[in-house]
Amino acid sequence: MGKPAPVSPLAPASFPDLPQIDGLRLAAAEAGVKYQGRLDVMLAVMDPGSVIAGVFTRSATRSSNVLDCQTKIGMDSDAGAAIIVNSGNSNAFTGRAGDGSVNAICAAVAERVGLPETRVFTSSTGVIGEPLPHDRIISQLDALATNLSADGLPDAAQAIMTTDTFAKGATATVEINGKPVKIAGIAKGSGMIAPDMATMLVYIFTDAKIARADLQALVSRLNAGSFNNITVDSDTSTSDTLLIGATGASGVDVTGNAAFETALDGVMLDLAHQVVRDGEGATKFVTVEVTGAANDADARTHALSIANSPLVKTAVAGEDPNWGRVVMAVGKSGAAADRDTLTIRFGDVLVAENGWVAETYREEDGAAVMKQPDITIRADIGLGEGRATVWTCDLTHGYITINADYRS
Amino acid sequence: MGKPAPVSPLAPASFPDLPQIDGLRLAAAEAGVKYQGRLDVMLAVMDPGSVIAGVFTRSATRSSNVLDCQTKIGMDSDAGAAIIVNSGNSNAFTGRAGDGSVNAICAAVAERVGLPETRVFTSSTGVIGEPLPHDRIISQLDALATNLSADGLPDAAQAIMTTDTFAKGATATVEINGKPVKIAGIAKGSGMIAPDMATMLVYIFTDAKIARADLQALVSRLNAGSFNNITVDSDTSTSDTLLIGATGASGVDVTGNAAFETALDGVMLDLAHQVVRDGEGATKFVTVEVTGAANDADARTHALSIANSPLVKTAVAGEDPNWGRVVMAVGKSGAAADRDTLTIRFGDVLVAENGWVAETYREEDGAAVMKQPDITIRADIGLGEGRATVWTCDLTHGYITINADYRS
Repeated sequence: MGKPAPVSPLAPASFPDLPQIDGLRLAAAEAGVKYQGRLDVMLAVMDPGSVIAGVFTRSATRSSNVLDCQTKIGMDSDAGAAIIVNSGNSNAFTGRAGDGSVNAICAAVAERVGLPETRVFTSSTGVIGEPLPHDRIISQLDALATNLSADGLPDAAQAIMTTDTFAKGATATVEINGKPVKIAGIAKGSGMIAPDMATMLVYIFTDAKIARADLQALVSRLNAGSFNNITVDSDTSTSDTLLIGATGASGVDVTGNAAFETALDGVMLDLAHQVVRDGEGATKFVTVEVTGAANDADARTHALSIANSPLVKTAVAGEDPNWGRVVMAVGKSGAAADRDTLTIRFGDVLVAENGWVAETYREEDGAAVMKQPDITIRADIGLGEGRATVWTCDLTHGYITINADYRS
Repeated sequence: MGKPAPVSPLAPASFPDLPQIDGLRLAAAEAGVKYQGRLDVMLAVMDPGSVIAGVFTRSATRSSNVLDCQTKIGMDSDAGAAIIVNSGNSNAFTGRAGDGSVNAICAAVAERVGLPETRVFTSSTGVIGEPLPHDRIISQLDALATNLSADGLPDAAQAIMTTDTFAKGATATVEINGKPVKIAGIAKGSGMIAPDMATMLVYIFTDAKIARADLQALVSRLNAGSFNNITVDSDTSTSDTLLIGATGASGVDVTGNAAFETALDGVMLDLAHQVVRDGEGATKFVTVEVTGAANDADARTHALSIANSPLVKTAVAGEDPNWGRVVMAVGKSGAAADRDTLTIRFGDVLVAENGWVAETYREEDGAAVMKQPDITIRADIGLGEGRATVWTCDLTHGYITINADYRS
C-alpha cells in the first residue's frame, strides 16, 4: 500500500445507495491485521433459512480460506450463515498454520453468533505467504457481533479493500408477482485480476427465495459471462471468492425467474466492471468484442489475447490507434484466424479489413476513439459465428509504480 | 523510434569479433524505408552449394515475407542463395500489396545477383500495417551488390535493428578432424518477444558442410531450447524468422557431429539471451528454472507462467523478493502443482518449502539476490522429473514509455 493512491479516473461518481436486505446484518471493525486506522474486517450474518452459493479461484495454490469454503459450499442447512473477511493478509501459502487460522476464526465466529462451524465462511485478501494474525480478528468479534446492522454494507465494502482506490457496490430491485426482490453486492479487487477468476472478493445478498442448488447453478452460469471475462494483468489470485447469500425474507420464489436472473446478471456485471475500472494504474476502460470466430471458445481466446497483450494495453495507454498490435494479438492467440478475413474496428470506426487498412480509414478517426476514457476494440475474425466479450484496462506507469513497490 | 533510447544496462560490453565465413558476403545500405540517416537494409549472398534452413513465427497473421520464406525453405538447390532484410516496416498485414512487395524485391535481387527467385529470402521488421516502400529497397540494390564483402556482418547487424539498443552478434569456432568450422550469427529484437517464436530476426552462417534436411532438423531442435524459451512481454510477432546458411566452404562434414551441435547451440543461446538483455526497458536478466514438474511440458508451462507474470516482473523491477507472486504464477499456470510440495529459491537462497516460507529464510538474503542484474528464480514443483528453463526480463517504466509512444 504505502501512500494512498488517488481514486481511479474511471471510478463511478459515487458509491450507490444499497438497500437493506431483510435477514442480513453486517458490521465492520479495525483489527489492525496489517493496515492501521482503517476498517479491515467485516462480518455478515444471515438468518436461519438462508442459502449460500459461491464460485472460487481455480488456482492450484489457493488459500486455506478458499479450500475451507469449497468444502462447505455444497452443504444444505437451515441454520443461517456467517461470512467473515479480512484485508491486509491473504493467508495464502501459509501452510498448516493457514489452515489453523481458518479453523480458529471459524470456531470463534461460530461460538459468538451461535452457528455450526460449517456455516461460517471466511475470506482473506492481501499479502501472500505471511502468517495471518488471526487473534487480532478474533479480538474484534465482540464488537462486530454487537454492531451488526442492516445498514452495514457500505462499511463492509470499505473493510475488504486492499489496493482498491474506491469501494465497490451495486444493487438492483426487481418486482415479481407484485413484490419487490432486492439484490445488493459489494466487491474488492484491482490487481492480480484475470480469469479464472479475477483477483477479487465479491459478496452478493438477496432476499429472494431459492434452493441452494438452483442458486449455485445460476451464479455459476452468470459468473462465466461476467467475472470470468475480466482481466487486468492476466494474473490469477490464490484467493478469489464470490459468495452469494439468499435470505428468502421476501417470500418470493425466484427459481427459474428470468427477471431475477437479468437483475442478478446486471449486479454481477456492474461489480465486475468496477473491478476493471479500479485496475491498478488504469486510465482507460476497454471492452474487447470478438465476433465471427470459428466458435465461442475461439472467440474468447482471441478476446483474452487482445485484452492481455502488453503491447495492445500500452498502445491504449498512449491513446495510439495501433491496430497492428490487435492483428498481432489475434495472430498469436492460437485460435483459428485468417489474415485476409479479419476486420478490426475501434468503436464504430472501421480500421482494417480484407487483410489491410480500410480504404475509408483516417488515422484521426481512430485517434479520436482512443482519446475516450471508455474504448471498444472490435475484431471480426470472418470465419464463423463464435463471439465473446471481455473487459480490461490499459497498462500504464501507474501499474508499474504500484506493483514494483507494493510490499516494501 | 523517436529519440534513441540509452543502451540497455544488460548489454554485453562490446560487439564480438565475428569471423569471415567463406562463401558468404554481405553489405548494408541506407534505404530510408522509415528511419533516416542509418543503415536499414542488408543483403547477404551465399555461394553455390550453400544450404538454407529456418524456423518461423507460428502467428496466424504472419507477414508476406514469412509466408514466402516458408514456401521456399524446403527446396533443395545448388544455386547459392540471398537474404535481404529491411528494418522500419514489417510488411505485415498489408494484404495483397504485401505479397507484391515481396515478389518485387525477390525479382530484383534475383536479377541483380544472378539467382533464381526461389533462392531469395526476405525479412521485414518494424511497423505493422503500412505499405512497404519496396522501391526504396530496390533502388539500393546496385550499391549493395557492389559493396558485398566478407566483412559485412557487423553492418548487417546494425541494419536490422528497430527498437534494439545494441547490435547483437555471436560466434563460435569448433575444430573437427583438425580443421576449423566457423559459426557467426546476428540477431535483432527487443519488444514483442515471446514463444513461438520471439519477435526477432536471426541470421546464422557457417562454413560447415551439411545436407539441407539435416541442418533443418538440427536448427529446429536447438530452437526449441533457445529462442523458443525466451519471453519479454508474451507478445508474439508476425515476422519472426531464423535463417541459417551453411556454405560448406570449410569442406568439413558436420552431419551428426556433437561438437558442432554444441557450438551452434551456444551461438543460438547467446543470441537469444542478448535479445532478452535488450528487452524493452529491461534492467534485470531473469532465468526461470523449473524442476520437479510432472513432465517437461508442465515444467515449461510453469516457467512461462512465472516469466510472463506482470506481477512477478514488476516485483523483480522493484528488487522485491516477493515470492508470493511466484506461488501465484505457479498456481495459475494450469499445469499440475501442489501447494505443500512447492519449493522456491531466489538464486541459491531457499525461500519457501512445504507450503510456507522456509524456516532459514531471511528477507535480507532474498533482497540481496534481487539487487543483482542477473537473477535466477527456481521453482521445484515436487511432483516428478519434468524440467524447463526460460529466460525473461523485468517489466519497468521503460517498457511503458517505449510502447505507449512507439508509433507516434
